[in-house]
Amino acid sequence: MRPVVTLTTDFGLDDSYVGVMKGVMLSICADLYFVDITHKIGPQDVPAAALLLPTYAPYFPPDTVHLVVVDPGVGSARRPVALSTPHGRYVGPDNGVFSLIWQQARAHSSAAEVRAVVTDEPRFWRPQISATFHGRDIFAPIAAHLAAGVALEKLGSPLDAPVMLALPEPAWNNPAHLVGEIVLLDHFGNCISNITTDHLQQIGPLNDLCVSVVGQSLRIAHTYADVSPGAALALIGSDGYLEVAVRDGSAAHSLGLTRGAALAVTRE
Amino acid sequence: MRPVVTLTTDFGLDDSYVGVMKGVMLSICADLYFVDITHKIGPQDVPAAALLLPTYAPYFPPDTVHLVVVDPGVGSARRPVALSTPHGRYVGPDNGVFSLIWQQARAHSSAAEVRAVVTDEPRFWRPQISATFHGRDIFAPIAAHLAAGVALEKLGSPLDAPVMLALPEPAWNNPAHLVGEIVLLDHFGNCISNITTDHLQQIGPLNDLCVSVVGQSLRIAHTYADVSPGAALALIGSDGYLEVAVRDGSAAHSLGLTRGAALAVTRE
Amino acid sequence: MRPVVTLTTDFGLDDSYVGVMKGVMLSICADLYFVDITHKIGPQDVPAAALLLPTYAPYFPPDTVHLVVVDPGVGSARRPVALSTPHGRYVGPDNGVFSLIWQQARAHSSAAEVRAVVTDEPRFWRPQISATFHGRDIFAPIAAHLAAGVALEKLGSPLDAPVMLALPEPAWNNPAHLVGEIVLLDHFGNCISNITTDHLQQIGPLNDLCVSVVGQSLRIAHTYADVSPGAALALIGSDGYLEVAVRDGSAAHSLGLTRGAALAVTRE
Repeated sequence: MRPVVTLTTDFGLDDSYVGVMKGVMLSICADLYFVDITHKIGPQDVPAAALLLPTYAPYFPPDTVHLVVVDPGVGSARRPVALSTPHGRYVGPDNGVFSLIWQQARAHSSAAEVRAVVTDEPRFWRPQISATFHGRDIFAPIAAHLAAGVALEKLGSPLDAPVMLALPEPAWNNPAHLVGEIVLLDHFGNCISNITTDHLQQIGPLNDLCVSVVGQSLRIAHTYADVSPGAALALIGSDGYLEVAVRDGSAAHSLGLTRGAALAVTRE
Repeated sequence: MRPVVTLTTDFGLDDSYVGVMKGVMLSICADLYFVDITHKIGPQDVPAAALLLPTYAPYFPPDTVHLVVVDPGVGSARRPVALSTPHGRYVGPDNGVFSLIWQQARAHSSAAEVRAVVTDEPRFWRPQISATFHGRDIFAPIAAHLAAGVALEKLGSPLDAPVMLALPEPAWNNPAHLVGEIVLLDHFGNCISNITTDHLQQIGPLNDLCVSVVGQSLRIAHTYADVSPGAALALIGSDGYLEVAVRDGSAAHSLGLTRGAALAVTRE
Repeated sequence: MRPVVTLTTDFGLDDSYVGVMKGVMLSICADLYFVDITHKIGPQDVPAAALLLPTYAPYFPPDTVHLVVVDPGVGSARRPVALSTPHGRYVGPDNGVFSLIWQQARAHSSAAEVRAVVTDEPRFWRPQISATFHGRDIFAPIAAHLAAGVALEKLGSPLDAPVMLALPEPAWNNPAHLVGEIVLLDHFGNCISNITTDHLQQIGPLNDLCVSVVGQSLRIAHTYADVSPGAALALIGSDGYLEVAVRDGSAAHSLGLTRGAALAVTRE
């Protein structure tokens, strides 16, 4: 058995911070296998990490430990936490980064299966704790011990629920008019909204819907190749969210879309 | 035995797409070992990936699976393919990305040793196929099954040959005058051409050759240290291709070279 | 036993150079486990790599092999070296990149425990050596053989000490006035100096000290959260060096700090 630990941080790729955390973890458990998700979360952008987590964690084996270090409150009173769910375990700062994962796990599983602890048991930390790098001194060692087989309950005190962020939710103007927003821009310039296929089905059949964004009206296509190169389209992305794209181009750039931009769906 | 899978994509490093593919593969075969080559292929730049592949694949153990996802045609009729050669196995879209690898393998090995299939056997895919992320739904699972030991022939229907791109080839003006072009600019600004040592030997001894590029005439040096810091030179790069470099500097920047720039070799 | 090899280079993330080195190493020892530290050292910036090495190597298991390829002198007379210390083994060009690691190891351990060789034994290289990519042809194979269990002394001829760089040292104006400089800017814009807690304790208690940088006077805080968002502070970083930061911001950007900027510490 080779325990898997994934890493998401805002540390970037220029420094040794990520490497240091891996060194600390390998010194605790020499068999760990690391998968870097991204280290390019915007500095201290907790909501971005919270939104990214459900896009990858469900695809990993369920005993994977997902370490997330986006930690603007390092050295302050915010607590370190660890969670266990039927579809993954999680370690990081209790600053809202686990909001969506917790919500989704609680919606689909019993409270006995979805548990949290404050990881306040110092014998699972590094012996000395700096004021500025809990990723190295607390979160990495906790993740390594959890992955190596230490039970969640041994790592600290029970916690009812982690801190919840108020993440943007789509709003109904009327049953045929939903307003959401762009929450994620990817590397290709695809603009992913917070509107799901569930929302869309409440409005009507996909073929009858019209997506309005920055003054454009778009039909919902099946895939990029359904429109001409350079043309804009709306489509259901691979995670089930409504997104705006430009074939062989960047919707973010061509349409000037940014995070937070409004997006309305109506029935024709 | 720990099966190795390399990854080359145009997904960038900001999103979770690469991590998702790894999660899918680990869920199929928990022992896989991943080596990221690069995720910074230009968006949808199939020729760049085709040219990069032979620069790394031959250095890996021969049973390595090389996964390549640069896939502008996702969701359209382009087929998914897998190849087996004596020097590596390959999985990706059939859009020309395997042109050079196939050509080189066929030139040096028998048809029985160099085989391709369309990976159209859905039991080796994920159960549900999205219209926009075949990397996750088709290519990653196929790569994992192939690495885990499933025979190539089980993955789908035989294919005579994958799609071939027309990649730029050097042209002979006369037996002492060859015109090639820059096909790859690396991180250091070294400009690598499509002219090989084989071509050069047909013109004459290296010491007698003159390389002309953007109005400069360069002799072929042995290594960077043969010229002064800041000076331009031509040399045979580590893969046997003629390249233009600037010692302790960037030829791309200093000489204004870009992909496609012409490069002539003559005998003095 | 799974031998660990870390990698630090100036190769960037766009090309296949790092992947090629890993392919070469896996072809020598199929069980290696790689940890990428960074490939974004500035092109040919040997001092930056020398300063980065002690920030991560001590956190890894002591038998880890740390491969460093920042090699402006490739193809010239500079020698390839390998070092063994009680806290890590090292492979790379003998251009000063191991200055600090060697100094620190020699300060804390006996000469018998801290040893160097010129890796001039070609049977541990690749069969053919290019003039421009010793990372692939010499350093990677040496690192793989060392990690796989070949004794340091078999890899080449004994060496008294590797090349030492003259790295910037803080200077005492008087016993209560120390002048150092910024040696590293991290991804967050934190500016790390060459002044250690040992230096500071020689001046006086931390609470009595004043840090002067670009015309600002800063007290030494415990952590970022001790000041208001956007405010500058001095603090002891997680590796024990004095650094200048801006809470939830970039000191490099806000204060216009660059590598080499002076930083004075006085007693009030």
